[in-house]
Amino acid sequence: MKKLINSPESVVSDALAGLAAAHPALTVDVERRFVRRAAGTAGKVALVSGGGSGHEPLHAGFVGPGMLDAACAGEVFTSPVPDQMLAAAQAVDAGAGILFLVKNYTGDVLNFQMAAELLEDEGIESRSVLINDDVAVEDSLYTAGRRGTGATLFAEKIAGALAERGADLPAVAAVAERVNASSRSFGIALGPCTTPAAGRPGFELGENEIELGIGIHGEPGRRRAPMAPASELAEAAVDAICTDLDFATDGDVIALVNGMGASPLIELYVVYNEVHNALKSRGISIVRNLVGNYVTSLDMPGFSVTLCRADADLLELWDAPVQTPALRWGA
Amino acid sequence: MKKLINSPESVVSDALAGLAAAHPALTVDVERRFVRRAAGTAGKVALVSGGGSGHEPLHAGFVGPGMLDAACAGEVFTSPVPDQMLAAAQAVDAGAGILFLVKNYTGDVLNFQMAAELLEDEGIESRSVLINDDVAVEDSLYTAGRRGTGATLFAEKIAGALAERGADLPAVAAVAERVNASSRSFGIALGPCTTPAAGRPGFELGENEIELGIGIHGEPGRRRAPMAPASELAEAAVDAICTDLDFATDGDVIALVNGMGASPLIELYVVYNEVHNALKSRGISIVRNLVGNYVTSLDMPGFSVTLCRADADLLELWDAPVQTPALRWGA
Repeated sequence: MKKLINSPESVVSDALAGLAAAHPALTVDVERRFVRRAAGTAGKVALVSGGGSGHEPLHAGFVGPGMLDAACAGEVFTSPVPDQMLAAAQAVDAGAGILFLVKNYTGDVLNFQMAAELLEDEGIESRSVLINDDVAVEDSLYTAGRRGTGATLFAEKIAGALAERGADLPAVAAVAERVNASSRSFGIALGPCTTPAAGRPGFELGENEIELGIGIHGEPGRRRAPMAPASELAEAAVDAICTDLDFATDGDVIALVNGMGASPLIELYVVYNEVHNALKSRGISIVRNLVGNYVTSLDMPGFSVTLCRADADLLELWDAPVQTPALRWGA
Repeated sequence: MKKLINSPESVVSDALAGLAAAHPALTVDVERRFVRRAAGTAGKVALVSGGGSGHEPLHAGFVGPGMLDAACAGEVFTSPVPDQMLAAAQAVDAGAGILFLVKNYTGDVLNFQMAAELLEDEGIESRSVLINDDVAVEDSLYTAGRRGTGATLFAEKIAGALAERGADLPAVAAVAERVNASSRSFGIALGPCTTPAAGRPGFELGENEIELGIGIHGEPGRRRAPMAPASELAEAAVDAICTDLDFATDGDVIALVNGMGASPLIELYVVYNEVHNALKSRGISIVRNLVGNYVTSLDMPGFSVTLCRADADLLELWDAPVQTPALRWGA
């Protein structure tokens, strides 16, 4: 294993220290492992997310005006603990309640639930929205029900924009739920990822073999198949997504073509082109897009596709200004 | 070889088609392989760059207001041809001349020179600025003199901002030259990259071996060494850079901690933290930074560091608004 780290034990703290050094607009509590905006906004619903590390820029890269108020970083592929979540929520509480955005993995779900209870004991109201957009499998190594992947970014962005406008907790939670219900994802791995602690790949694939429906921790997908051209891989992802939810009725989507960590951008643009074509042939138009590494699995080669039905309200919130390390646009 | 492509022959065209589909603000000539802004600005110096593909987002990802006017894409790791450069320059010429920004590789240098001559025949004035910031080696497989790497991004951003303000061709060329003279880079590979055409790694490294001073095409660096912690690798890069140019006198730098393509963001933030510390101990402060994949080598794991001396003028131009696929900030 060759990784740009000092030790498997210090990788999360070292990366958080790097984040703090690179982004002075953020406040990073390296010891308690959460990242938050330096300044709160009185009366604003505070959005808090988090999860295992190894999916960067998710979640800490999405902290900032227009998106998250705080993000908790667990060990690699391991949920943060309730105390972290509580501390993060208390740090950004501005009197209008906390929205927890939780990817559907068993550890995250239990820990965020406990954090919500601890928060209630402190007299702070919270709501949790579960993200479970991955159509690949119903249950997996880490999950009961569907896994949460790329839609997390969409929910964080869109609910973040609504919170910024002063909407109340039920409204911000409702839009996050609507984004989740309107989104579907599917991922394909060309190879495994290696956690620093394990030091060897989490699974093995043959020289010409890929895994369809892979999870973001390398947990198994639907099936293995021979390597195929990008056009066929994109079609497989789009087909799995569109079989699960009818995106053609309205026809407009926000699309994320996401790299899993080790696939270069030139390849992601090849995939984007094929996704664009596969959707066009179904009468679906991509009206906004992201192409790049956003919800990753350490050093896994491969990609995922996430689509979200885009009505005018969601699009307007998507277009609203955002100032975070990984997403940045508008005034 | 597993890559997200349709065929080695079509990878560049397919990626350009994806870029066109994803970024409607750009005009992409897929056949002649250049990307340009949709609208020109009368009387503005036009910035044109380009080079072999495989370094994405460089260069096409830096086309847009505040940065390049056009970028030419060659085959993977192969210079574009003069006809492409001529066509791109003619397409964006707005009457104030063309600035070619050329990374110092023999093919690029010769072809841009020929393009400048062809352009002169058409009555269009041009200047070329050579980028040669890589301190690792004097000559290499692809280069006479030093190679051009991360400073290209700095020159494109800063000269782009000055051109946007209506500066004339000599002034825009002068600031690009100043950025190049003020910048130094050094890269370290943990492993090789594989071109689609070759289908196998361009070189081999032992299980615990790295290459110090690697080029962005996998061409040899200074030496091979055993794998080491991120702190030592960052120190090696910073030491090579600061031995070559005294960054401590003024003390403020713009820093790029750049991923070579397959190293995940969590690792790049670990490296950033160490670069930050290594500079701090030398009395050098990073006043602006980028952390991520900007000047890549396909699927190579590893990183490079680029520093640019930052005086108030350069910083103001760095901070000016930019709207491109890969760099986006300001109004």
